[in-house]
Parts: sequence; structure tokens; C-alpha cells
Amino acid sequence: MKVKLVLNIALQYDLKKKSMTDTQKKVKIVFTPSGKRGSFEIGTKVLDAARQLGVDIDSVCGGRAICGRCQINVLVGDFAKHNIHSDFTSVTEISEAEKKYAERRGLNEDRRLSCQSLLKSDAVIDVPASSQVHQQVVRKENESHDIDINPIIKPYYVNVAKQKEKPLEQKSNSSLHEIKTFKISVEEPDMHKGTGDLSRLKVALSEEWGLDNLTCSLDVLQSLQPVLREGEWKVTVAVRNNEEIIAVFPGFKDELFGIAVDVGSTTIAAHLCDLSTGEVSGSAGLMNPQIRFGEDLMSRVSYIMMNEGGEKDLTRVVREAINEIITTIISENNIDAEDILEMTLVGNPIMHHLVLGIDPTELGAAPFALATDLSADIKAKELNLNINSGAYVYVLPCVAGHVGADAAAVLLAEEPFNKDEISLIVDVGTNAEIILGNNQRLLAASSPTGPAFEGAQISSGQRAAPGAIERARIDPETLEPRFKVIGCDLWSDDEDFEVNIPVGGITGICGSGIIEIVAEMFLNKIINQDGKINKALSETSSRIIEDGRTYSYVLHDGEQVIKITQNDIRAIQLAKAALYAGVKLLMHKLSIEKVDRIRLAGAFGSHIDVKYAMALGLIPDCLVDEVSSAGNAAGTGARVTLLDKESRNKLEGEVRKIEKIETAVEPSFQEEFVSAMAIPHKSDDFSNLAKVFNLPKPEQQGAVEQKRKRRRKRVR
Amino acid sequence: MKVKLVLNIALQYDLKKKSMTDTQKKVKIVFTPSGKRGSFEIGTKVLDAARQLGVDIDSVCGGRAICGRCQINVLVGDFAKHNIHSDFTSVTEISEAEKKYAERRGLNEDRRLSCQSLLKSDAVIDVPASSQVHQQVVRKENESHDIDINPIIKPYYVNVAKQKEKPLEQKSNSSLHEIKTFKISVEEPDMHKGTGDLSRLKVALSEEWGLDNLTCSLDVLQSLQPVLREGEWKVTVAVRNNEEIIAVFPGFKDELFGIAVDVGSTTIAAHLCDLSTGEVSGSAGLMNPQIRFGEDLMSRVSYIMMNEGGEKDLTRVVREAINEIITTIISENNIDAEDILEMTLVGNPIMHHLVLGIDPTELGAAPFALATDLSADIKAKELNLNINSGAYVYVLPCVAGHVGADAAAVLLAEEPFNKDEISLIVDVGTNAEIILGNNQRLLAASSPTGPAFEGAQISSGQRAAPGAIERARIDPETLEPRFKVIGCDLWSDDEDFEVNIPVGGITGICGSGIIEIVAEMFLNKIINQDGKINKALSETSSRIIEDGRTYSYVLHDGEQVIKITQNDIRAIQLAKAALYAGVKLLMHKLSIEKVDRIRLAGAFGSHIDVKYAMALGLIPDCLVDEVSSAGNAAGTGARVTLLDKESRNKLEGEVRKIEKIETAVEPSFQEEFVSAMAIPHKSDDFSNLAKVFNLPKPEQQGAVEQKRKRRRKRVR
Repeated sequence: MKVKLVLNIALQYDLKKKSMTDTQKKVKIVFTPSGKRGSFEIGTKVLDAARQLGVDIDSVCGGRAICGRCQINVLVGDFAKHNIHSDFTSVTEISEAEKKYAERRGLNEDRRLSCQSLLKSDAVIDVPASSQVHQQVVRKENESHDIDINPIIKPYYVNVAKQKEKPLEQKSNSSLHEIKTFKISVEEPDMHKGTGDLSRLKVALSEEWGLDNLTCSLDVLQSLQPVLREGEWKVTVAVRNNEEIIAVFPGFKDELFGIAVDVGSTTIAAHLCDLSTGEVSGSAGLMNPQIRFGEDLMSRVSYIMMNEGGEKDLTRVVREAINEIITTIISENNIDAEDILEMTLVGNPIMHHLVLGIDPTELGAAPFALATDLSADIKAKELNLNINSGAYVYVLPCVAGHVGADAAAVLLAEEPFNKDEISLIVDVGTNAEIILGNNQRLLAASSPTGPAFEGAQISSGQRAAPGAIERARIDPETLEPRFKVIGCDLWSDDEDFEVNIPVGGITGICGSGIIEIVAEMFLNKIINQDGKINKALSETSSRIIEDGRTYSYVLHDGEQVIKITQNDIRAIQLAKAALYAGVKLLMHKLSIEKVDRIRLAGAFGSHIDVKYAMALGLIPDCLVDEVSSAGNAAGTGARVTLLDKESRNKLEGEVRKIEKIETAVEPSFQEEFVSAMAIPHKSDDFSNLAKVFNLPKPEQQGAVEQKRKRRRKRVR
Repeated sequence: MKVKLVLNIALQYDLKKKSMTDTQKKVKIVFTPSGKRGSFEIGTKVLDAARQLGVDIDSVCGGRAICGRCQINVLVGDFAKHNIHSDFTSVTEISEAEKKYAERRGLNEDRRLSCQSLLKSDAVIDVPASSQVHQQVVRKENESHDIDINPIIKPYYVNVAKQKEKPLEQKSNSSLHEIKTFKISVEEPDMHKGTGDLSRLKVALSEEWGLDNLTCSLDVLQSLQPVLREGEWKVTVAVRNNEEIIAVFPGFKDELFGIAVDVGSTTIAAHLCDLSTGEVSGSAGLMNPQIRFGEDLMSRVSYIMMNEGGEKDLTRVVREAINEIITTIISENNIDAEDILEMTLVGNPIMHHLVLGIDPTELGAAPFALATDLSADIKAKELNLNINSGAYVYVLPCVAGHVGADAAAVLLAEEPFNKDEISLIVDVGTNAEIILGNNQRLLAASSPTGPAFEGAQISSGQRAAPGAIERARIDPETLEPRFKVIGCDLWSDDEDFEVNIPVGGITGICGSGIIEIVAEMFLNKIINQDGKINKALSETSSRIIEDGRTYSYVLHDGEQVIKITQNDIRAIQLAKAALYAGVKLLMHKLSIEKVDRIRLAGAFGSHIDVKYAMALGLIPDCLVDEVSSAGNAAGTGARVTLLDKESRNKLEGEVRKIEKIETAVEPSFQEEFVSAMAIPHKSDDFSNLAKVFNLPKPEQQGAVEQKRKRRRKRVR
């Protein structure tokens, strides 16, 4: 076992010299990896010694050999030479309680429970990571950093009865009215102990855990007496932020859960996390049922404006969907809804408002006023969300009118405020939320890309689902396409492709597919920088066809014809121009020409090929290696706030510092937007991009731009 | 106008000497009645000067001449000779805003608004009581002391828009998606001001009122945007305890209400209070509909024990009844439910638990464990109570298992903890709640009197309602009775009595009537000290009749025969013995033989004639002048906590200090109980009582007691 050796050499010497000969009452101990050390009386509990020295060591059961959180190792050997092994002779033998624990839940040979081990002689005591309160969850693919485990909800096991247990069990069925002759040795009323069960619970929490001035939710109060009696006065108390008793469970319980929920316009996703390990125990998702009131955000806001009380419908269905996800997740993980003690919630401003039951109409028009941009702690039951009735929902702050709690979550997942390099973080949805900056200065804006990137407003567009074309290539010679569909690992030119396509066939093209095919059409000169389809090619390729008053490219000619029309290309141009103009606006504000790194958040960011995003001009030129997917960064951010309460304060502080740019009212946004319609775009030198693709030279672009300008003049 | 002159003589001299000649920029002012003084620049607002000096002067509108709370008088004359009058020459002329206020709401000639008056020269400025924040409500009949007005809810008027008003009104209907070319002069995002409406409201509250770190209830958030717009950015914010925004009203509003609710086993009563003046604006009451589940507390607990989920029925109906009272009270007072911003709630432990939705089964048997004895702040909507959706219910603490929040309220109304004399406070209901002690030591207990004092368990008993006999006298010569019934002012021997009795006739006898008649029977030797009816008298009086195996006294021989049976007398003896034994137990604990004063709380205490209560031996001997009704002390206590937030802390502290005595498990209670069965009782010398009535001498009592003891021996 490798331990981080922070031992003071002098102290090691002390230990070697004195350890077995010293007959003083006090023994010296050193804890690793913290290096904290001190002298203690022989017979001191290792756990108590650790606490006195401020060593980070966990315990839920309060030293009763129940929770097994306080495991330690005792090390001997030559520390300088890293030649060490376990040796428990410096502490007392394994106790009966510890044996029971080992039988019940298992205990490694190189582990002891520190609450059962008393010091006999000098020792070096190692606290493994799993026994530390402040653990970390190691980052996953796409995730920017590890997550500290310091949840706002913590369990505390207490025995409320203690010496009082017996008298309380001598309960009689006699009624209040009869004059009784029996004697009951109910303990003398004691001012300190209080006369109500809640008071006694609070005294126990104060005496055993030093928790004072706790409030208690009504739900706990309503169930307190039966729970105390069911647990025979031994209960596990879930305390929120050292302030409020939010739940009480009979007996010992150390598995508490939280749930991080990301409410998107299209999909709602949730991750169930074990609050002690930080691990994701399960995930589930669902389409946002609000779609029936409007495909995109603005049509939902319109629905509300047209229908009296319409906001209540949207609130109700989104909450029902969250509850449905909770039902799925608890049944899949074989837990109760009552085991979920905290929820964190992210979403764009309109989703944020609707889940909270706030009419989002004001967000539909300038000045795009949020009811609140602040984070909020709201009782889950106030939102009709079916987790533990005492649980709270922490709603992340919104950044600005169009930059929601989802962007705040991305910010926390990515932490650009901790980096010297300039990060550009883009979360593409119906609106693209853009964060740009570093540890000096951070800007945020939202750009109205519309739903084209999600497959909407595209003639054959569809959401990413089995049967949707997700990748596409065009042969430069023949202009023939090949593609992949979701649900099949083969390319369409593979001979087994036909028999492997998903049931239902090839149904449409999704966001990543449309980006690749339009970029490929540009790279193969089927469209020019203005996005116009070269009708001359219709003479040499059957793929380019006349289609009403314009031309289209036929991507797939099966049961369902999937073609890319001139209008589709315009929709993509509008969307990408909006995104790019937004990015450019922020770059201007920050007076920078280049960004150091680009992170693409969200499902869209995970699926698109960054090369093609650059080829199409969604994002500014950047070293391709420095462009990466941030994965489900909003979900990660929501999870961080669930697992680490300190992250909440940090986030709220950072969000407050962000400069919010309203693209809709920035005159330069219009200019950027117009010039960003070109493919890839006119303003960058895109030297990096040029290395990846064979791109037209800047001169050519200039020519196209000249021509476009002339045309505009004529229009005027 | 009489002002409390606390002026420093030296300063008066200063003012006289310098006032009109001094040409310095600074002027000297003195405030009465506080005597606070200081120098200020000419042109300083009187309100600002008062604030700087810490003078107690009210304002809701923040100096906008809207609320009229900051009225002052300016006094001149010879203060030493009390020859003074109003003279406003030392402040600026009445302002336009002030004139508007005077037209709208009236302004006395000797009053000015301090927010509109600027200092011109030295002045003595009087702050009348009505302009002080810390007013008092003068006590009413039966009430022990005045109530300080310092409610937990305070209104603050703010203008959220200020300079920002114009841009916000330039709202366009343009949607989020369209790329816009219009320009909107939305203020540059400002880190300090925040970007959400709530943030801006919080900034306004901080800047104008110094209120920081406020939280905000979800209900407020949900209605914030429409309210801000309806009020054109001028709103009145109800803040609870300087901590939470619980309601926001459009425009200026200074009439906020609270409601104090006393949930009794039999009746529920509520008082609506104006939170600024402290006056009771209206009251309403209703029978407790739980009666249909059981007449007394124990039968209701039995109902719960016998019927799965029965506690939910009882909780539902009691909350419905409170809501019905609220509906009555708001319609009678022409206000909205939303105008009620705080509720305080008292009740015995079982009512307390049931209103909170806690199963009271544990209170039905030893050890009579309360779920909580602590006070609680609970959202009204969590209890389904229909007042403002952001409002809280402050639930007073319970004293002990049988000594509820109603007793705590009585404690606060009576304040025995502030007195040197030993007070005995008794609140008679189904259980008698007893508080005994003074500023040194306080004890509390509950005694199981049963419902006999309320007319239940008595053969002709009924609740106090029209037609019930409430007073009774027996002619010592003839043993003929005369009586009064509720609903008629005449005695039954008045010649007009027959035509004046209430519709429905004479229907029974209520608590006060039964006490008087049994006491009269004893005083007239119809019963002896053991309570036995002297059957020999049946030979001389037709009123004493043989009635099965025992004898009865016929009180009324009308359509309905109302007689006092031997069993009725036994029921009263049991009840009074329980009460007296409880009192005696506490007196023993406190090692006292006499109490200095007795206060009888509750409806029962208001109706009984204290002489008869003493004659019957309900209470120990005491100077009759020192025995008085405390009126509806529980209701008063509830009102005190509504009007004065400091009273809550005080009460919670005092309740914690009370020594709780559980009569049911005190062996000496049994002894006291047995010996208290005698009428009036054996242990007092009742010298005071002897002055009022012609009572048997102590020797006789002793004889009776001897006899009784002999009988007991035989039984053993």
C-alpha cells in the first residue's frame, strides 16, 4: 500500500528510538497522510485522538462500530526506504463489536476500526482515503476536475434513550383520566433534556455530535415519535448544512442519496448520487413533455401568452416528468423516494422559471427580466417533487436573462475562472449559451441559434434517435455520400449495412449529421461560401437535383428520401452565424483575437466532430487539439453542487462576477451576425482549420465577401 | 398636549440663549420624550436627524410623505413652567408632498411629517406616541399588563425602479429568436444591482432600509414580476424578522394584519390584530368540529387509536374550522386573506399536535411524550391554513405533556415570573393546567379534572349556552332554590322571569351553575363534607327526593326536570379534588402554605364566582380580593406573541425554566386527591373563606376526616 509520506524525519527517529522502551503513560502518534501528531494517554481511542488533532476521519455512528467509516491502518517499517507494512500491535486487540462489524460487512486484514482501537504504544496511523470525510470523486471522461465530497446533507446516528431507555419502555395503556396508583420511574423532568421527543433528540445531537441550534422540518416532527419507537430510540438523523433536521430514520442508516436534475427544453436527465461516496448510482432521462405545448422555448412562451393559466400546465407537466424520472431511478436502484434527501436543479432560464412555478413571460421579450437570478433553496414538496418530504431542492443561480442555471452549472464543471488560458465554453441548445474568459475576467451571453442544430426546422431533420443519420461523408470525385445512422455501427457503404439498420429504417438526419453533411458539401464545393448550391453540378451528379425554385442534395434515396435543401442550408447558416456572432461579440469585448481552448458542452457538443464544427464556422479558429467536448457539463455542475456544498458559495460568487452581455441589444452583434453567414466565416484566418481540411484560401473568401457586399449595396 | 419632559435644564438654557441669534451652520435640537439631542447642519431632515440620534420614530414609506407614520410636533415656551405650545417656525414650510398627504389622510395643526421638515434653527421636537415604533397597547380588563408593539412582520415601501424606471418601460414585444435592429437603453448590467427582479428588490431594500441577506419565499418569487409591474416598480414588502421577504404588495400598503388563534377542545377562537397599532380589529369563534369524534380529549385520542388514520380526520376538521373562522373574520373586516401575514397558535398538547398534523397517541398514556415541546415557525400553507401564502404560523411552546401551548400563553399573559408574590394560575378545561410560583421559581402541572366543570358527566349538565342555569342560590330556611339562566338577566324568582326565559326553555346546568349549586347545598347542609345528601331532609323539603338508591336535589321542576344527583356531586368532588390536589402538590414542592394571589384563566374562570369556587374547595384559601379572573389569558398570550416578537424569546426562556410536575406519577398526588374529596377540603384553615361564608369549624372537618379514615381502614 502506497501512502503519501509526510512524516517528519525527526519524529520518525523519535519513534524508532523510543517506541518499545518508553514506559511513560503517554504515547506518541503520527497520522498519515496529514502528518498531524501528538501525545496521548495510553488507552485513548484512536478516533478520539484523531478528532483532537483535527485529523480528517469519518464517522456516522459516533464510535459504535456500526458504520465502518473510521477504518485505519497502523504502519511499521523503514519509512525512509518506503519499506513498510501493517502491524496492529500498538493498539488493543480487535473488540467484540468490531468482530461483529467484520462478520456483518467485512473488514480487510490491514484495517481496524479507529473507534474500537485503543492506543497501547507509539504508532504511525494511516487514514486511507475511503475513511476521510473530504474524499474526492475522480473525474470522468470529459470532466474537467475531481469533485470534493462534502455534501450539504450528513447522517448522524444517535441513541436518544441512553440511560433513559428502560423507563420509557415501561409504557402503560392507562388513560389520562383515571387516577392511577401505579408508579412509573419516568426520569425526573430535566430542564436540560427537555420534555418533548424533539428536545431529547436535539440534546442527543448536541451531546454526541456537537450540533446545536438545529431547526426541524414539520415532516420530521410529524413522523418523529413512531420513528423513534420503531428504532428503539436509536435513529439516524439527516442534518442539512448543520442547521436543519430534515429526516430521521429508524436505526442505523448510512446510505443517503441526492439527485441532480438537468431540465432541458427537449430532455430531462437525472443522476442519482450516493452522498457518502459521491458515485453516480443511477441515471435516467425522459423527453420534456412540454414539447406538446411547443417544440422550442419561444413557442412555449407563446402558448403561455395565448392561454390563460398556460404556465401552470407547463409547470405541472415538467414536474410530473421529473417525478416520473425519480420513480424510474428509485425502482432501478431499489431504494425509496425517502432515501433521496437533496436535489439540485439546473435548466435554462425558462425551464428554471417553469419548474419553480414562475410565469416566464417576461423572459420572452426585452428586457428579458428574470424573476430571480439568485440561487434558491426550496422544499421539494413545495415543488410537488416526490423525494423525501423534508428534502430541499437547491436551484443553481441563473447567469442572465438568457443564460441560465444550466450555464452556471457548466461554469462550475469547467471552472474557467481558475485558469490562466482563455476558455470559450459553448452549450448549444435552442439558445447557445456562451462563456468566455479566464481567471481575470469572464463574460457570458446567449445567442439565439434556434433549434436547427437539434434537427428542427430542417426538412428531414429529427432528434438524435435510432434511425437518424448522425455522420456523413461525400466522395470528392463522385460526390456520392456515405453515412452512419444512430443504432448501427456500420457506415452505409458497408455491405452488411442494409441488414443492420435499426427497426424503422432510416428516418431523418440529426444535429451532428446536418453539420457534417453541410460542411462536407462546402469542402466539396457543392455549396459556396455563401451557402448556395452549385446548380451546375446537377449536370454531372444525380445527387444534386432541382427542387422547386432551388436545388437540393440527395443524401439518401430510400423508403424515405433524405435531402439537404437550400432552405436547410440557410437554417444552418443562420444558426451558426448566431452562435459565431455571439462568440465574436464576447471576443471583441475581451479585446482578444484568439481563444486558447474551446469546450463544447451538452449532448450536441458530445456528438459533433469538432473538425466539422470548425469547417462550418460554428466556432472560431483554434488548435483542434484544444477543442474538446465537455460532455454533459451542466449535469456535472449540478452533481458538483450536490456533492460539495462549498461549491455552491463558490459558484454564486463567480456568477455574480460574470459580465452579462445581451446580444439582442448590442449593435455590433448584427454586423457580426451578417458577416458570419459565410462558410466558414470571413473574419478568422483559420490557419489551424486549414491544416485539417483543404480550405479555400483567404483571398478567395475575400472575393466572395466582396461579391456579397456588392449584392447588398444593390439591394439597398 | 402633555409631553413627558425629560429635557436637560442646561440645554434648555442653551436653546433660549442662542436659538434665534446663532448664525452658525449647525442647529441644536432636542427630541422629547427621549431627551436625545444633537447638532445638525441647517437643512437636515428631522427624520434623518432622529435616526442618527437613535430616536424611536416610525416610517414605512421611507420618507416619501406617504405613510404619515413619522409625525412630529415642534414645541416652544417655558418648559420649566410647563407653558408650551406648537410652533413650526424652526423647520421649513409644509412641502407639496406633505400638503397632498394632509388632503388625502388629514394632518392635525400641531403635526408635521418629519420626513418633509428640514431644520432651520434650534428646536425641541416632540415625537408623539403614535409616531413611535415601539408603541404599547394599553391593557384591557382582566389583562395583566400592556403589550409592546414590535411585530415580527414589518412593511417596507420601496421604489425598485428609481433611475432605471424608463428603460424598463420601453418593453418591446419582440421575441427572443428574431434578430433585432432596435436599440433598447437597458441599463448596462451592473454586478451590484443584479440582473433578476428579486436581486433588484433586494438591492432597494438594502439601500433604502439597510435590510441585507434577506431570503425570499417561493410564493413571493412566483408573484414578484406581476406585482412589481402592477405597482409600477413601487411596492410594499412584508419582511419577517429582518430575515425573509414573505409578501410583496403593489404600491403603498401599511395595514398588515396578524391573527391569534386559540384552539380549545370545545371552541376555537381567533383575534385579528392590526400589526401596526396592535388593536384587535375583529374576533370570531366556532365550536371545535372534532367534538363529533369525541366530546373530550381522551375520547378523541381513543378514536385515533381505534381508527387507522383517524388522526388525519381530526387534523383536517380542525384546520377546516380555523379556515372557516378566517373566512368569517376577513369578510367581517373587509380585508383579504392575503392581508394576514402571521398567525400565532395556542392549544393544549393534543390540540397542538393535531393542528400540526402530529398523531397525539403518545399523549394518551404514560409517559405522555410530546413530539415536541419547543415553539415552531411553520409555513401556514404547510398546515393548509388560508392566510397569505408566504405567512408563517408561530406555534407557542408546550410546557409539558399535559401542559400545553395554551398554558404557555397564559404564562406570558400573566407574567408570574416578573412578580415577587406567589401567583397561582389555573386554567380549567378537561384538564386543569396549573402554574405556581414567582420570579424565583415556577412550577407547572396538569390535573385530570375531567369535563365535569364544563357540564359534561353531570346528569343535567350542558355547555354554557342559552337556557343553561349559570347561577344558583338556596334559601337557608326553606331550601328552595332560585337561579339565573344564560340568555336572561332575571333571577328565577322575579315575576317576569317566565316570560323572559330564552326560546327553548331551561335546558340544563352549566359549569358555573353546578359549582354554585353544589357549594350552596354544602353551605345549607344539604350535603355534608363528604358530599353525601342528607336524606333526612327529604322529610321536610320536597326538593330533596329519593332517586333510585340515592337522593337528589330538584333544582328546577319544569318541562325538563333539572336535579342534582348524588352522582353529580361525586363527579364534582372528583374534579375539584383533582384540581385541588394538583395545586396542593405544587405548593408542597414549593414548600409554601399560602399563595398570594390566584388568577382563574379561561371561560370557566371568567364565569364562576370565586367565592363559590373557594367554598367548594376548588382552590386553596386566599384573600378573596386576590382571586380574580384572568379572562381569556391564553388568547391574550397568543396576541402578545403576535404583536411583540421579543415576547417569543422571553416566553421560550421562561418555559424552559419551569419545573414540570407529572401529577399522575407523584405518589403524594394520590394522597392529596383522596383528602381533597371533602368539601371544601381538610388541609387549609380557610380563614379567609370563613369571613365570606359561615363555614363549619376546622374541628368538624377533622371529625369528618376521622370518620372517612375509619371507613377506608374497613375497606382495606
